[in-house]
Amino acid sequence: MQVSYCAQCGSHVSEKVPAGDTRPRLVCDQCGLVHYQNPKVVVGCIVQWQDQILLCRRGIQPRYGYWTVPAGFMENGETTYQGAVRETWEEATARVELIAPYLTINLPHINQVYLLFRANLSDTDFAPGIESLETELFTEAQIPWEQLAFPTVAAALRRYFADRAVGDFPHRMADIAEDTPDPEGYRIDYFADQF
Amino acid sequence: MQVSYCAQCGSHVSEKVPAGDTRPRLVCDQCGLVHYQNPKVVVGCIVQWQDQILLCRRGIQPRYGYWTVPAGFMENGETTYQGAVRETWEEATARVELIAPYLTINLPHINQVYLLFRANLSDTDFAPGIESLETELFTEAQIPWEQLAFPTVAAALRRYFADRAVGDFPHRMADIAEDTPDPEGYRIDYFADQF
Repeated sequence: MQVSYCAQCGSHVSEKVPAGDTRPRLVCDQCGLVHYQNPKVVVGCIVQWQDQILLCRRGIQPRYGYWTVPAGFMENGETTYQGAVRETWEEATARVELIAPYLTINLPHINQVYLLFRANLSDTDFAPGIESLETELFTEAQIPWEQLAFPTVAAALRRYFADRAVGDFPHRMADIAEDTPDPEGYRIDYFADQF
Repeated sequence: MQVSYCAQCGSHVSEKVPAGDTRPRLVCDQCGLVHYQNPKVVVGCIVQWQDQILLCRRGIQPRYGYWTVPAGFMENGETTYQGAVRETWEEATARVELIAPYLTINLPHINQVYLLFRANLSDTDFAPGIESLETELFTEAQIPWEQLAFPTVAAALRRYFADRAVGDFPHRMADIAEDTPDPEGYRIDYFADQF
């Protein structure tokens, strides 16, 4: 969000380094309030049903019509896993039982951190939520790799299926950086292979 | 941060539920900009040196004079672990080698998520940064439990020493809730004992 006016008094803000700080912030010219801007957390679930994964086709921008795991911005007043369960309900009307936090993805170029949980679908009584066009279960072979909404979704599903193949799901962390694109248009760095 | 004025045009904002949304947001009366407010991420390190842990005595409010692990708000443009390493440098002028993401703590009552990494101190050439009064290595027996700055620090250190005792550090997630205080003034819920 571009901040031009002070949240507290409505005066203009300017970029300056506050006393005791080391980096430029948006500071109110009038009342001096510092407007800190920090990364946002995206929470979601990789939802399992037998050998299938639940995906949602996005009914909103960005990436309208492309497939994603249920995920969205964490809200104030909730925990990471409450947010993941809420997003799964909102996007797919799906009830899940959480298994574990699984994958953290750093996206420093867009100031986001993804926290994805593994979860079991409680029943197959799911349907598109208000932000989805379709909800569907996919086997690994059926995943619409060319129609995934975001690099995070592709990275998460690749990692998930690789881990599933060896039957072990350790907690993992990855970076997706935009600066040196691979042939797919992004780069995935794993923090270390054991994570 | 209390938002009274629009970041984009400086007009008054009002609490209302935007079209297609389910919860009240701060919306500009004039231009309609929605001011989303989301949890902040705190990143830091549990820094090991032999059987000791590095703590910093806070030289700033809140909790001036109390001990903490090096940690602070994640900044835009960095990854979680870059933030953890940066905070460790800023607060303790300490160089570390990261081992792994270790503990996620949900603090829904204050809209924060802590992400703490385990790290090895690279050398003992550390010293208080600008925000610290003292930096010191403590064995488990020496930890100043009564003078720790935050429940997150106590929870993280307890979990760490318990895991160290059995020689295994799985990724863990915990909640700290304010609503039903235990005798120490807070409650820690572990998401599941294996995390």
